[in-house]
Amino acid sequence: MIQRYVYGNMIETDTIPVKPEAGNEPLPGFTVDEKEHSFTYPLGKEDRIYGLGENVRGINKRGWIYQSWASDNPDHLEDAVSLYAAHNFLVVDGEERFGLFLDYGGKVTYDIGYTEMNRLTIRVNDFNLDVYRISGDSVLSIVQQFREMIGRSYIPPRWAFGFGQSRWGYVCEADVRQVVRKHRELGLPLDSVYLDIDYMDSYKDFTVNPERFPDLAGLASEMAGQGVHLVPIIDAAIKKEEGYPVSDEGIRKGYFCTDKDGKPFEGAVWPGISLFPDVLNPEARKWFGRLYKVLLDMGIEGFWNDMNEPSIFYTEASLEEIRTRLMDTVGATPDVNTFFELTGIIREVFQKDEIYDSIYHHVNGKRIRHTDVHNLYGYNMTRAAAEAFETLAKDRRILLFSRSSCIGMHRFGGTWMGDNKSWWSHLALNFRMLPSLNMCGFLYTGADLGGFGSDVTEDLLMRWLELGIFTPLMRNHSALGTREQEVYRFSDLDGFRHVLRMRYVLLPYLYSEYMKAALDNKMLFCPLAFDYPEDRRAQETEDQLMLGDSLMIAPVMQQNARGRMVYLPESMKLFRFLKDGKAIETVLGPGDHYVECELSDVIFFLRPDHLIPVSSGGNCVAEVDFDHVHFLTYPVGNEACYEYYTDDGISRQAAGTRILYRMDEDGEVKALPQ
Amino acid sequence: MIQRYVYGNMIETDTIPVKPEAGNEPLPGFTVDEKEHSFTYPLGKEDRIYGLGENVRGINKRGWIYQSWASDNPDHLEDAVSLYAAHNFLVVDGEERFGLFLDYGGKVTYDIGYTEMNRLTIRVNDFNLDVYRISGDSVLSIVQQFREMIGRSYIPPRWAFGFGQSRWGYVCEADVRQVVRKHRELGLPLDSVYLDIDYMDSYKDFTVNPERFPDLAGLASEMAGQGVHLVPIIDAAIKKEEGYPVSDEGIRKGYFCTDKDGKPFEGAVWPGISLFPDVLNPEARKWFGRLYKVLLDMGIEGFWNDMNEPSIFYTEASLEEIRTRLMDTVGATPDVNTFFELTGIIREVFQKDEIYDSIYHHVNGKRIRHTDVHNLYGYNMTRAAAEAFETLAKDRRILLFSRSSCIGMHRFGGTWMGDNKSWWSHLALNFRMLPSLNMCGFLYTGADLGGFGSDVTEDLLMRWLELGIFTPLMRNHSALGTREQEVYRFSDLDGFRHVLRMRYVLLPYLYSEYMKAALDNKMLFCPLAFDYPEDRRAQETEDQLMLGDSLMIAPVMQQNARGRMVYLPESMKLFRFLKDGKAIETVLGPGDHYVECELSDVIFFLRPDHLIPVSSGGNCVAEVDFDHVHFLTYPVGNEACYEYYTDDGISRQAAGTRILYRMDEDGEVKALPQ
Repeated sequence: MIQRYVYGNMIETDTIPVKPEAGNEPLPGFTVDEKEHSFTYPLGKEDRIYGLGENVRGINKRGWIYQSWASDNPDHLEDAVSLYAAHNFLVVDGEERFGLFLDYGGKVTYDIGYTEMNRLTIRVNDFNLDVYRISGDSVLSIVQQFREMIGRSYIPPRWAFGFGQSRWGYVCEADVRQVVRKHRELGLPLDSVYLDIDYMDSYKDFTVNPERFPDLAGLASEMAGQGVHLVPIIDAAIKKEEGYPVSDEGIRKGYFCTDKDGKPFEGAVWPGISLFPDVLNPEARKWFGRLYKVLLDMGIEGFWNDMNEPSIFYTEASLEEIRTRLMDTVGATPDVNTFFELTGIIREVFQKDEIYDSIYHHVNGKRIRHTDVHNLYGYNMTRAAAEAFETLAKDRRILLFSRSSCIGMHRFGGTWMGDNKSWWSHLALNFRMLPSLNMCGFLYTGADLGGFGSDVTEDLLMRWLELGIFTPLMRNHSALGTREQEVYRFSDLDGFRHVLRMRYVLLPYLYSEYMKAALDNKMLFCPLAFDYPEDRRAQETEDQLMLGDSLMIAPVMQQNARGRMVYLPESMKLFRFLKDGKAIETVLGPGDHYVECELSDVIFFLRPDHLIPVSSGGNCVAEVDFDHVHFLTYPVGNEACYEYYTDDGISRQAAGTRILYRMDEDGEVKALPQ
Repeated sequence: MIQRYVYGNMIETDTIPVKPEAGNEPLPGFTVDEKEHSFTYPLGKEDRIYGLGENVRGINKRGWIYQSWASDNPDHLEDAVSLYAAHNFLVVDGEERFGLFLDYGGKVTYDIGYTEMNRLTIRVNDFNLDVYRISGDSVLSIVQQFREMIGRSYIPPRWAFGFGQSRWGYVCEADVRQVVRKHRELGLPLDSVYLDIDYMDSYKDFTVNPERFPDLAGLASEMAGQGVHLVPIIDAAIKKEEGYPVSDEGIRKGYFCTDKDGKPFEGAVWPGISLFPDVLNPEARKWFGRLYKVLLDMGIEGFWNDMNEPSIFYTEASLEEIRTRLMDTVGATPDVNTFFELTGIIREVFQKDEIYDSIYHHVNGKRIRHTDVHNLYGYNMTRAAAEAFETLAKDRRILLFSRSSCIGMHRFGGTWMGDNKSWWSHLALNFRMLPSLNMCGFLYTGADLGGFGSDVTEDLLMRWLELGIFTPLMRNHSALGTREQEVYRFSDLDGFRHVLRMRYVLLPYLYSEYMKAALDNKMLFCPLAFDYPEDRRAQETEDQLMLGDSLMIAPVMQQNARGRMVYLPESMKLFRFLKDGKAIETVLGPGDHYVECELSDVIFFLRPDHLIPVSSGGNCVAEVDFDHVHFLTYPVGNEACYEYYTDDGISRQAAGTRILYRMDEDGEVKALPQ
């Protein structure tokens, strides 16, 4: 059951397509303080708190302060409070069990047992919001009700489930061709190559550098011939430049955010001084979305929207402030305080929160301060594209995912986990984000495999790919200046080939489960605590996840380990696929097991009386035969069935077929007549 | 067996008191490239590499690049390459088994399977060093031989095994008194309070702020009456100030490091522009050490040496460089590159490595560039104090530990693990440093419990203390501006009291094991891999350690966990001490076990036929009865004995007694006649 509570007058977010009527009762269990803008709830000793989507720390979020405040924070450290997204949905599970969603575009702080271990305090910036309380018999039922309310999750084209190779540093056509050639020559499956900011002309959105990418349409077509899709980046900010049509037209039509004087707000990002499309304004949103057409017309079928928190490095005013204050120090005795002041001035200017106070949106005749709707920006940029694609690409799905997001955007695109680092701890962190994101409607997601910042090692990349083969978005991406991390840069090519190929073997199951999760509002990645709610051990398991109906994954996330401990809440069958082609199946009873997993092994677990449809692989998704699957099985005596979803992988309607497969007494799996 | 290999002419480090003769054979197994200054060794697939003392990542160091280069690096991240220390000892264990020590004061890089997974490359800055190769039947034998060669580890007074409370932020006598009063009132054991830089007058070493600490001698005496020792900080740099005797005398006598022109080198640290005692110069070292007398005379019996990498924030020249370059940007169009240049300039100046190139030491008539001996600085600062104490405190031990260190310093003082953060990952990191530090001779060590930087949570502090009760240095320390983290700031006082008291209960065992480790050149904290070398699971266990002869520890290091998995290489008895006074003993067989450990529980494991001498506790070390101990036991049929070391806890000679206790058939433990 969902109950809506109204506080003040919220600024519309369009997150909830059809809102339930609001009641007049007080929010049960909470102390609401209108002066402090806070909601306080006493936590039971063993209450667990799930949700908040993309953020730091555990699956159980208890024991820290978090914020919903979209930030271009490249340091995903334990003491961060927010990353790129703002996902205001959480579930309290324990003495009571309920979900809570804050429909709100401003800053929210969640003190989850930080100040006092047994207290949850939620504080909002201004007291104008709707709160939804969702009760249910189980966490899964609460999540499903919430997901039904917020609407169906984004569905990408099926090719977007293939492996993608990316790097900030592919600066010309030859770089792209080399990546593709290497993969094809070495038998490494590949479905897409991503283009980071260097493909543009001076970082101008919707332009292509004429020297380095003289014929992008030709390149896209050439790559398509090899089964590879090009996926360019689109940044939020538009370079301010006379003669650049996007800049000129946006200024002329008033489609950019303004400053306090009503002039287009200017902030510096990659292109230098830039303007920010007012994507909260329906007219501007429509205009911005249609700009993608120029790339669609070149044969591009996918995009990633970036820097859309929006990230602002600095403004002209803040730079002037630095200069002035630095000039003051000239001739002064340089004591330590002066020095730290100098460094502080610079640090404070970069990504300064206060800048957002001086930016304004114009929505249906109303002027809205950016700070009050900050978290809606990336959402609406992505919505702009998605809404345009409904017209520009009527019949087919376009790949679209975004760095910044808030709930609502899940209907329009996926999200990746931002600029992580090549750290083992980030492999584990990104793993734990998966179910939290699913709870908030984000199914199409994944991390930069191998890590974006910092230098990867061969073993870290291998282990990360062993997780990545299970995530809908499977992309190896790294930053300029870091170690090159295409898999062919390393020694164990057989190992990498084996791991990548396993992705394509598993695709029938992964795609089928993804589609059912989207169409039926279910979790794709599920904490053990949700599926085995009475199991105390399952409640604190943070390094294993259920994946769809049949699978459990437990990747190795520790360097130099040759295996790991795995907790089984029930009997399961372990599959261990070795790079030499061998597959070892072992039935394990409930409890704790040490499971061997050498560096290039792929392991997963199959639940009893469940089935997994698999293919015999392919070099790209188009080569995978989704119609003639075979099955991994673990029969223990009851009926083993699998509902297999399949479709053409591209039509918007996603009106596929669901075939029920059943295993008969001889161990054969057959489709039941429909 | 130890073999010495000489390359070029090393600058003497005084690390090895008596050097073995050098041979003429090549270093076995290594390719030595004199041009590249490198030593390369092919790693077997399963070779494990241990050592390198204080550094990031695992107990097994394989899979990263590390450096020996003492750095004031406050971010102990996974991709750091060095922290505050330079510990050039490692052991390769696998197809071959040997130890390697580089006697060298300059920068060393260890590429341990980073560039290529199966290659170890060690590179030195200039090719003037001695290399020692140590072979043996076991890692433990290799370590013991190495430790015998480098000389006996530092032994602190016994009171330094008590709990210490510290914070950068106790700025006056009242702050100190409050800490002590709170602990005594609440029955929280306490042996020391640390004084950070605020006790000094304008950050001048060997001065005391006359307003805020008007009578330090009186305060020390008053605290001593309550069983509490004051432990002030000493920073490496000396404020340059006319009229400040240390500055004046050091300049007059030529006891400071110089710049290229032979003038005292000036760099800014906390006091502003400062001078750096030339502690490599025997005369200056003697002078500097005797400066501690002023504090000893006030009744101070312990010191921590800090900022002695040495940390240099900036120089006058580098600040001028910033100004000049910033002035150049005035009036320029502020594009993104300009901005990043601005921020880059500042970042580069802070702790700039190149500064070290312009600093010189004067040793026995020779001028030595600091860069070539950089890693010896903290060592020699601490040696200065320790050598002076031999005269100034002839009969008694003085507590002394240092932030920067290299091997050699282990004879003169302990080391703490530097400016960590209140992160769960740092709890685990500091745990893993323990055996690596022990290998390098550093026995008196511990982390800032609860974490120095960032904000602690109550549960993290509790869990960290549950590890801290086992580490020789047990200090809660935090930084200015972070959440106050004295245990009495939190809710579960009974829990904290219980955990702290357990330290004092365990002290007879902990002190006895420490002393035997120091006197017999043994490990105190030992990876399971060393004690159970044939056990493959033990080889990859990085979250459990053997502690002395009888104990295994396995602290909970994950937030929101109510227990953890523990691997037992042999049968052991689990002790679980609850805060309500209950003690639960459970015998567990070899293999994997889930062990319950609620937030304030103290758990550890006792090996079969081993004993642990314990006391009934005390509010400070002086109250602990070391002469009448009782025993925790786990007899399984063979003779259970324990060699108990005890002494007066203060005499330099450490000429204590060793009593052999044996458990008889009735389960009674008795001392054998000596």
